[in-house]
Amino acid sequence: MRTQVGIVGAGPAGLLLSHLLHLRGIDSVVLESRSRRYVEQRVRAGVLEQGTVDVLDEAGVGERMRAEGLPHHGIELRYGGGGHRVPFERLVPGRAITVYGQQEVVKDLIARRLADGGTILFDVPDVALHSLEKDPYITFSGERLDCDVIAGCDGFHGVSRPSIPEGVLTVFQREYPFAWLGILAEVPPSAEELIYAHSDRGFALHSMRSPEISRFYLQVPPETSLDDWPDERIWAELRARLETVPGFTLAEGPIISRDVSAMRSFVAEPMRYGALYLAGDAAHIVPPTGAKGLNLAVADVRLLTAALAEFYATGSTALLDAYSGSCLKRVWRAQHFSWWMTTLLHTFDDDPYGRRLQLSHLDYVTSSEAAATTLAENYVGLPFDFGARP
Amino acid sequence: MRTQVGIVGAGPAGLLLSHLLHLRGIDSVVLESRSRRYVEQRVRAGVLEQGTVDVLDEAGVGERMRAEGLPHHGIELRYGGGGHRVPFERLVPGRAITVYGQQEVVKDLIARRLADGGTILFDVPDVALHSLEKDPYITFSGERLDCDVIAGCDGFHGVSRPSIPEGVLTVFQREYPFAWLGILAEVPPSAEELIYAHSDRGFALHSMRSPEISRFYLQVPPETSLDDWPDERIWAELRARLETVPGFTLAEGPIISRDVSAMRSFVAEPMRYGALYLAGDAAHIVPPTGAKGLNLAVADVRLLTAALAEFYATGSTALLDAYSGSCLKRVWRAQHFSWWMTTLLHTFDDDPYGRRLQLSHLDYVTSSEAAATTLAENYVGLPFDFGARP
Repeated sequence: MRTQVGIVGAGPAGLLLSHLLHLRGIDSVVLESRSRRYVEQRVRAGVLEQGTVDVLDEAGVGERMRAEGLPHHGIELRYGGGGHRVPFERLVPGRAITVYGQQEVVKDLIARRLADGGTILFDVPDVALHSLEKDPYITFSGERLDCDVIAGCDGFHGVSRPSIPEGVLTVFQREYPFAWLGILAEVPPSAEELIYAHSDRGFALHSMRSPEISRFYLQVPPETSLDDWPDERIWAELRARLETVPGFTLAEGPIISRDVSAMRSFVAEPMRYGALYLAGDAAHIVPPTGAKGLNLAVADVRLLTAALAEFYATGSTALLDAYSGSCLKRVWRAQHFSWWMTTLLHTFDDDPYGRRLQLSHLDYVTSSEAAATTLAENYVGLPFDFGARP
Repeated sequence: MRTQVGIVGAGPAGLLLSHLLHLRGIDSVVLESRSRRYVEQRVRAGVLEQGTVDVLDEAGVGERMRAEGLPHHGIELRYGGGGHRVPFERLVPGRAITVYGQQEVVKDLIARRLADGGTILFDVPDVALHSLEKDPYITFSGERLDCDVIAGCDGFHGVSRPSIPEGVLTVFQREYPFAWLGILAEVPPSAEELIYAHSDRGFALHSMRSPEISRFYLQVPPETSLDDWPDERIWAELRARLETVPGFTLAEGPIISRDVSAMRSFVAEPMRYGALYLAGDAAHIVPPTGAKGLNLAVADVRLLTAALAEFYATGSTALLDAYSGSCLKRVWRAQHFSWWMTTLLHTFDDDPYGRRLQLSHLDYVTSSEAAATTLAENYVGLPFDFGARP
């Protein structure tokens, strides 16, 4: 087999790349080790930045997102017995977020690629990358895919990044002393917008997937087991952390999904080795507090598409050569924002001074127009060219 | 002896309190363990917020400050080979800082108190506080000063805070793994404004006391000795950290003063016990990076003056009872800002991820209007009533 761009991974990064390349007349093949059903059901992020929405819209895959997604124009910071809304419509006029599950984006992209005659191979075992310096190819289940370029879109645990020889990448990372227990519940959201709750019992997040499905997260110890969290304990803990302002009652319903995710910050530099270009979680991870993971992947893919389009149109590798550096400017901005939201809102053991700093910082963010704007502009997403200096 | 307010400490807090009380017709006695010459020569802070300048002006002790102080309308953040000015005149119109040494404020206040017939006792040994719950008095070198109220303005190492019984105060603190080596040099400043320099060798600050005297600081290990820092090493290190942008040359001159100061964040709550009211460093310490120590003391004293004035005018203790809580809102804002400036600019060992966060954060502060405004509005000083919620 031969294609122009071999794409490893059928998550949002790989699928969107394949679609955007198709729009530019560039051929690709997507290889995915999991089943179609698995990737379409995998519960992940659900907050799309304005720029992500625009990319999907402009690429003609935004129809269902526009119909079913929930535009939000603010979030609430809840702490110290009060709720404080961060009003995007006033702080960053014209920009908002859209609540729309990552798996819905994946479904839309798969449907569109298949309708356009694209090639996505699911359930592909033994994917391996070869000859990354020159004439690269991918092998899988006895077959061989030759290509000009390989896009590693297979996430943090995928094979792409470990295919780069030792010593090439510099890794920057931080672990956090807690995890998130996430649940989906069949109950309408208890508020119209997301609620980020700072509490002495730990952080909690009230979110949603649709007008019928609520999404909640609880800060839990890193080694927590789902066995330790029967439904009643989950609801009791959510009530204790969220029912802290007058008039707010948590609506409960059947829990239909639960997961525990580690909280980690991670960047591997550079995001390219030879003919291999990493995009999304394959190159960088953020804790989910800032809702940046999926959005960063879209930003990477947007740059990689432009670079490949230039390469195939003109033979110039200028944008391909600039890809890693350009991505990393935005990656580090999101790394900082995600670290900031995480350390602002979670409880850390044995740090009473830090706890007071958090409360003072929350008071500041909710009373200074400038400070609130820093949260809002990062949350809705800075422009794609942010940080690009002449 | 008897007075209305017994003031322990003739630093800026104690002296300003004595003067402001005098303007309201309230009698006080200031007790200082050091000599007049010592407190007038002690080199400390040198950046006055707009609000501090206004308080001194309105109290009629701002004449020399206005004549000799240097108004600054911005600072420079220098990192990554570039200099980036934070323009106060655009970000926080009408507010600025004034460079004027703390010891000059002290000289002005001592001269004014003595001219007004005020009592300041220098070189007073063995100061001790008694009967803080009721009918308080102060003893010193065999004498006794009875008073209605005691103001503890004697700094972090003074006797006031330790006079409060054990178990009353809650202490919040953080130590930093570095200190500041500060020097005064007889040479005109090398730039018109302050330069905060982020460098892989450690933080450096270019500052000044007058058009003829430069003030510099170097981040150094916490256990550093002045013996390890001959003049040539100091200048070499300042050059290495500050001469990092094209066209900037450090002007050198005779070093006339040098000191090493620890970097510590500290808050003791509450700031009152019975008849004893703590103000300034006696209750809270910030690392000097944000230039907030003296300014916080002035804010405390301003509130304490208003509270005592109300008490003597009406007998109401409402403002006195609110004193600690009102001060602490502003104290914690400054604690957060000082911690933020400190962790943004200094090098920490073995934290490459944190180092990248710093650089991304600096890029953000120097390119986002909102982020730059958060720095500017904290640096020039938030309004005295900041954080007061109805």
